[in-house]
Amino acid sequence: MSRVLLTGASGFIGRPTLSALLEAGHEVHALALRRGEEIPGVTWHEVDLLGGCEVLGDVEPEVLVHLAWYVEHGEFWSSPENVRWVEASLSLLRAFAAAGGQRALMMGTCAEYAWSREVYAEDAPLAPATLYGASKHGLHVVASAFAEQAGISLAWVRPFLLYGPFEAQGRFVPSLILPLLRGEPARMTEGSSRRDLLHVSDAGAAIAALAASPISGPVNLASGIGVTLRDVGERIASICGAEELLAVGAIPIRAQEPPSLVADVGRLERELGFSPRISLDDGLRDTVTWWRERSLG
Amino acid sequence: MSRVLLTGASGFIGRPTLSALLEAGHEVHALALRRGEEIPGVTWHEVDLLGGCEVLGDVEPEVLVHLAWYVEHGEFWSSPENVRWVEASLSLLRAFAAAGGQRALMMGTCAEYAWSREVYAEDAPLAPATLYGASKHGLHVVASAFAEQAGISLAWVRPFLLYGPFEAQGRFVPSLILPLLRGEPARMTEGSSRRDLLHVSDAGAAIAALAASPISGPVNLASGIGVTLRDVGERIASICGAEELLAVGAIPIRAQEPPSLVADVGRLERELGFSPRISLDDGLRDTVTWWRERSLG
Repeated sequence: MSRVLLTGASGFIGRPTLSALLEAGHEVHALALRRGEEIPGVTWHEVDLLGGCEVLGDVEPEVLVHLAWYVEHGEFWSSPENVRWVEASLSLLRAFAAAGGQRALMMGTCAEYAWSREVYAEDAPLAPATLYGASKHGLHVVASAFAEQAGISLAWVRPFLLYGPFEAQGRFVPSLILPLLRGEPARMTEGSSRRDLLHVSDAGAAIAALAASPISGPVNLASGIGVTLRDVGERIASICGAEELLAVGAIPIRAQEPPSLVADVGRLERELGFSPRISLDDGLRDTVTWWRERSLG
Repeated sequence: MSRVLLTGASGFIGRPTLSALLEAGHEVHALALRRGEEIPGVTWHEVDLLGGCEVLGDVEPEVLVHLAWYVEHGEFWSSPENVRWVEASLSLLRAFAAAGGQRALMMGTCAEYAWSREVYAEDAPLAPATLYGASKHGLHVVASAFAEQAGISLAWVRPFLLYGPFEAQGRFVPSLILPLLRGEPARMTEGSSRRDLLHVSDAGAAIAALAASPISGPVNLASGIGVTLRDVGERIASICGAEELLAVGAIPIRAQEPPSLVADVGRLERELGFSPRISLDDGLRDTVTWWRERSLG
């Protein structure tokens, strides 16, 4: 059991990570712009990390799990906010070191890789094509060198396509579920791109387990299974009972879109002993149910 | 003629850069912790960049030449101050963009390269072995992606071994000149390492010319000529008339010390049309004279 500081605790990935940390018996200090629900074992701190991180000195966390970032859908790829989050994240890591912290987990992205392969292991060439990817990669370069100097063990997590409850509505999975539940056409590309989907509950469980492990360096966070977006769309349409409303090919594929983003999950499986508990079909069913209850409720 | 904001203006590289910018007719706003001498064409701003950079909004510079960094001799390789300077440099670049700036020059280091070659072109593999090198490299990754997004043309300068007046006393060249001028033994390693020396006046001239050019991306700042440190030591001892006081081999070589750090200066020569005006012998003589006058004065 450790005293863990979790940033982005009320976000899409933060929620299931918070649950998994509590389940593992950790004392969690949860940072967010606005406090979440009162849960035993959680101390909320309303903090805007872009304005500083004095809270570190009071909490003196043993473990830092830093998930907070700018994630506005459609904007986050190229927003200058990414640069502010590089600054804030370095400042946070320095404050964590100054407060005596020894183990940290920070979030990278599969957008750090040079998008030219089918499957990406952690040692694949890095050549981010976006400001978001470059900001995460540059942060990793500085943070890992600083961590080594400061005696902090640092895990750097590279998530692929995470989906599930509380995902931003404009992202791929909700962008299909929501119109289908309303009985409207769900527009998507021809869907030939291969992606690697992981339910966010599995992601949260993996992050919590990684944070408590001694594994350092980059670690892909994914299922390791490639599916075409068309396949995902068809599964969602089938679950919604609205196959005829799936408008495949209604949106042109973006020029920069990589044909395949599938992870080699060897580190996650072999070193952490983690494998997803939620199949793609179960996960999509769970997600459709969640959106249905939310739109009814 | 442009309105140029120069940071680190009273530093080792900043001084000759300031002179070269003025010589080229630019209007210079010089940032430093403490103002330097009053010179026509220079407006001094006493600013600690670690505390913010509001001055950008008032000056609205067209060109940014960002030299300021943590450079404490012996400390700078591994100090956490490097990380603060990454944060401050990104914040500065954002403020420059917000103030309408379009052309920037920032300083990297030859310590970004994987130290495994004899000669380094700008596209040589990068694998910084120090926190200093990693901080500069990570900053470049983020800054170049941000600059592209913000429509800023960014030159990234990688200096090799610069020497000349106002160099920190503990660094290689002054560490020999100062004892020799006092008539004391000057201790050095066996001196087999090859280095690429450039007089800091030439460096300042190259930086000023680069800042006014449209050249973007990484540019080595060096002479392109490799000399052994032993050769440099012997030249200095000869200039000082104290050959018998040069204690070659008195200090063990550091384990991480790269055997060769010599630049391919193709970009500097061909694209900028720059070549050094000061030979190594003239530069060392000038430097010995400067230290002699300083120690007498």
